[in-house]
Amino acid sequence: MKPVIGLIGPGAMGLGITRALRRHGFTVHVRDINPERNALAQAAGAIVEPTAAAVARRARIVITVVVDGAQTDEVCLGAGGIVETLPKGGVVMMCSTVAPSYTAGLAQRLAEYGILTLDAPISGGPARAEAGTMSMMIAGGKEALDLCAGVLPAMSDKRFVVGDTPGQGGTMKLVNNLLAGIHNVAAAEALALGLKAGLDPHKVFDVVMASSGGSWMFGDRVRRLIDGDKQVAAAMPILTKDVGLALDLGRGLQSPLPLGAAAHQIFLAALAHGHAGEDDNAVFRVYQALTGVELP
Amino acid sequence: MKPVIGLIGPGAMGLGITRALRRHGFTVHVRDINPERNALAQAAGAIVEPTAAAVARRARIVITVVVDGAQTDEVCLGAGGIVETLPKGGVVMMCSTVAPSYTAGLAQRLAEYGILTLDAPISGGPARAEAGTMSMMIAGGKEALDLCAGVLPAMSDKRFVVGDTPGQGGTMKLVNNLLAGIHNVAAAEALALGLKAGLDPHKVFDVVMASSGGSWMFGDRVRRLIDGDKQVAAAMPILTKDVGLALDLGRGLQSPLPLGAAAHQIFLAALAHGHAGEDDNAVFRVYQALTGVELP
Repeated sequence: MKPVIGLIGPGAMGLGITRALRRHGFTVHVRDINPERNALAQAAGAIVEPTAAAVARRARIVITVVVDGAQTDEVCLGAGGIVETLPKGGVVMMCSTVAPSYTAGLAQRLAEYGILTLDAPISGGPARAEAGTMSMMIAGGKEALDLCAGVLPAMSDKRFVVGDTPGQGGTMKLVNNLLAGIHNVAAAEALALGLKAGLDPHKVFDVVMASSGGSWMFGDRVRRLIDGDKQVAAAMPILTKDVGLALDLGRGLQSPLPLGAAAHQIFLAALAHGHAGEDDNAVFRVYQALTGVELP
Repeated sequence: MKPVIGLIGPGAMGLGITRALRRHGFTVHVRDINPERNALAQAAGAIVEPTAAAVARRARIVITVVVDGAQTDEVCLGAGGIVETLPKGGVVMMCSTVAPSYTAGLAQRLAEYGILTLDAPISGGPARAEAGTMSMMIAGGKEALDLCAGVLPAMSDKRFVVGDTPGQGGTMKLVNNLLAGIHNVAAAEALALGLKAGLDPHKVFDVVMASSGGSWMFGDRVRRLIDGDKQVAAAMPILTKDVGLALDLGRGLQSPLPLGAAAHQIFLAALAHGHAGEDDNAVFRVYQALTGVELP
């Protein structure tokens, strides 16, 4: 018998996860504050519940995919929250990217109710969430891992157990996303330099990706930029937030991040320039404003 | 008949090129200011000449692989230099990484002697030079390209013709190496954060390289760092110099490079900390000094 799964927050990623779970034959109970998202989840075959507590009454595993720590707090410990109904020994699988110190504290507060926490931030975007091919950076005790062993493979084909303490999964995600944020800005900076010097952007792309300057972000973001692809594959505010969380982590640990801090300033400038609704490769628009270069 | 090749500067890269050319059956005349390098080139089957002019007397194609613009000037236009003997219509293939504006000016000065210039900076390190699998970013007129068409495939299996004006090859190389330099420092910065937060460095490596934070530099430099590999695969001063040249290029073009400038400061700190004789992944030692982290 497959376990019944609860999922709070069928947004862009959460809906993808819901569809992946349904395709694998899991029964999924969901709850969102937005009726439109509930309708989409219902269309995907999920059962919509009126509260997080109503979801948790039906499941031993509740996945949370909400925006931030405040929303996570609300759905876990607020009125009509998960702790009101989730049985002892149940698990909250935290998929949101939040401050690792928040996750560590949440796990302690949930433990007071006999509830386990699996810190399991996700990466890869909605399409891969739906395909069940996200990557996950997982941290939690053996009990929580065992309980989720049946459902994790339906969500992700790149699972990294990075530690046994909730917070470590988020830490790993922030280390990765710090790099992704720096590489995104570096790509824009180098492309602008190449354009300013008169190079063909497609040649810059080909040379860099075949040479020591290549990065996953350059390959993804610059390709879509020079192809004129305006679709929002990765919304600007997300990586802005993640690099900010990495800076907070570094501040707390006294681990200086000079490149991360400089990159974050460019993300902030992109928001200030009105690019919040665009893909995060719009950091290049900041360099356009600085240099006057144009893409052909 | 394969053309006779001249090569000035059989250093780490130049000796590799010499060996690759010999393996492909080219006759190679060489000259270095260091007798030890001449001996190594001779052992590889090259004919050692007393001056650059003596080399250029024997060849229509002279490859220069010297340290910087000053040395290039000396071997091309100084006493006993290439212009004294290279016949009209001969070509100087510039493989050193120098300021693009220098290359553009050199091409004009060589043109006064009827000599062509192929701007052809190289990338990949000595092992790939010897294997004939370096990458090359090539810029020059059709005549120069045609003259070198027979020899380029013996040197490189990744050749990018990026423009028809000498200087553009170097520009492309600086755009790439700007990224490589930023990514190298970013890798050190993120690894230090992960260690400071208590993550296992091998897990950091695996997660990042499977995720959006991956880069060619992270894969190469961090792997050798966490493996404790002390061999110098890429000497610290080289990328320090190249990022500095990229900053000079940006300054000249009024193309701000805030991440490049921040990364360069860390390279300078690595030199100041006495790591000039180490691999450039020793930028991590700066972050060690800043944070107190240790690699297991």
